[in-house]
Amino acid sequence: MNIKLYYDLMSQPSRSLYILLKSVNCNFEPKYVDLRKAEHYSEEFSKVNRIQRVPVIDHDGFILSESVAIIKYLARENIIPEKLYPRDSKLQARVDEFLEWHHIGLRLHCAMYTRVMFLDPVLDKSRKQDPKTAANYKGRMMDALETFDTKWLGQGREFIAGNTLTVADLFAASELEQPRLADFNPMQEFPAIGAWAQKVRAYFNPHYDEAHVIVNKIVDKRKLAAKL
Amino acid sequence: MNIKLYYDLMSQPSRSLYILLKSVNCNFEPKYVDLRKAEHYSEEFSKVNRIQRVPVIDHDGFILSESVAIIKYLARENIIPEKLYPRDSKLQARVDEFLEWHHIGLRLHCAMYTRVMFLDPVLDKSRKQDPKTAANYKGRMMDALETFDTKWLGQGREFIAGNTLTVADLFAASELEQPRLADFNPMQEFPAIGAWAQKVRAYFNPHYDEAHVIVNKIVDKRKLAAKL
Repeated sequence: MNIKLYYDLMSQPSRSLYILLKSVNCNFEPKYVDLRKAEHYSEEFSKVNRIQRVPVIDHDGFILSESVAIIKYLARENIIPEKLYPRDSKLQARVDEFLEWHHIGLRLHCAMYTRVMFLDPVLDKSRKQDPKTAANYKGRMMDALETFDTKWLGQGREFIAGNTLTVADLFAASELEQPRLADFNPMQEFPAIGAWAQKVRAYFNPHYDEAHVIVNKIVDKRKLAAKL
Repeated sequence: MNIKLYYDLMSQPSRSLYILLKSVNCNFEPKYVDLRKAEHYSEEFSKVNRIQRVPVIDHDGFILSESVAIIKYLARENIIPEKLYPRDSKLQARVDEFLEWHHIGLRLHCAMYTRVMFLDPVLDKSRKQDPKTAANYKGRMMDALETFDTKWLGQGREFIAGNTLTVADLFAASELEQPRLADFNPMQEFPAIGAWAQKVRAYFNPHYDEAHVIVNKIVDKRKLAAKL
């Protein structure tokens, strides 16, 4: 068995897959695709994934994109164990329910806020921040976080899909780390999210911190600059 | 076995599930939730789905939201046949790959254009259409449609996930019908999309047309008004 993972640790679902594969001791071949250098638009990578996005896996020549499709495939191929992605139909449905919701329910809003407040100004320094646009994106993110805080967590269960940790928790945590790049930390703003995220991080460490090393470096650098 | 489907035919994934269940002769109990009357926010429906969205199924008391999670569950429960949702791991991965991509890749952009150009003005008649905003949303939808046209179709296969029709095709078609409400028809604008959509419609008829009766009525009414 030979698995290649095309990824960039700036991409949330790339981090989720990276952490997952490391934590199940999958000896994958890391293929770094530098998004900041637009390597995902290169001719070489476009041959791997015509949609030009990471993450992508190559499993003995079978190339698959879309992180959620990838974990389901890897579960069927017995690379992801049952405890992280249940095989029982109803338990699996609960994990899937969150994973499907999270695309537009959580991921979109955290990613868009991060893009508008962090990525766009980095990529184009002349770009002016429009306060109304910023407030708009922040409002949508706050709504999403509140829904996550109360309707996915806050239901008397320890984790998203029940009382055991699953890939749903990992996928959510990776998304929630992203707005830290834009100086907003959902784990600090929402205590229940913070407590849950600590458990997810502890479960997946040292791989969780390893995958977030670039995010943490950028956040630390800004904190230091603010002090000077 | 007892299946209830909570739905509104104005909702794209509701239509997909409605068509799917009808076409496999599933004798489900239809539970209409009128989105235009905000019934999804009612206390009664919030007890069914705390996330307050349709579609939702209730399968012998097991309540599940998120259309893509629902079809996977129904496939495991042998309610959706293998030909529409493959059980082979790699074939299933190809269907999943599209279903995961379509949330933000296609659905979001068609739905947002429809919302800005059709729903918002209907719900608030005093609302002024900002041409710049409209052009923005249209641009994003056109990019999404072009990606769909060339990278999902246009790959030498007859359908999205290969040479046989699957749930991926149905989900895509339901999304592409939506902007017709806003006077934009992807099936007319993109000939390859039009030819493919005809095959999807023919496969699922009479249920496809039945599920789109409200959309078609609104479109016809506007056409008639434009002639007067």
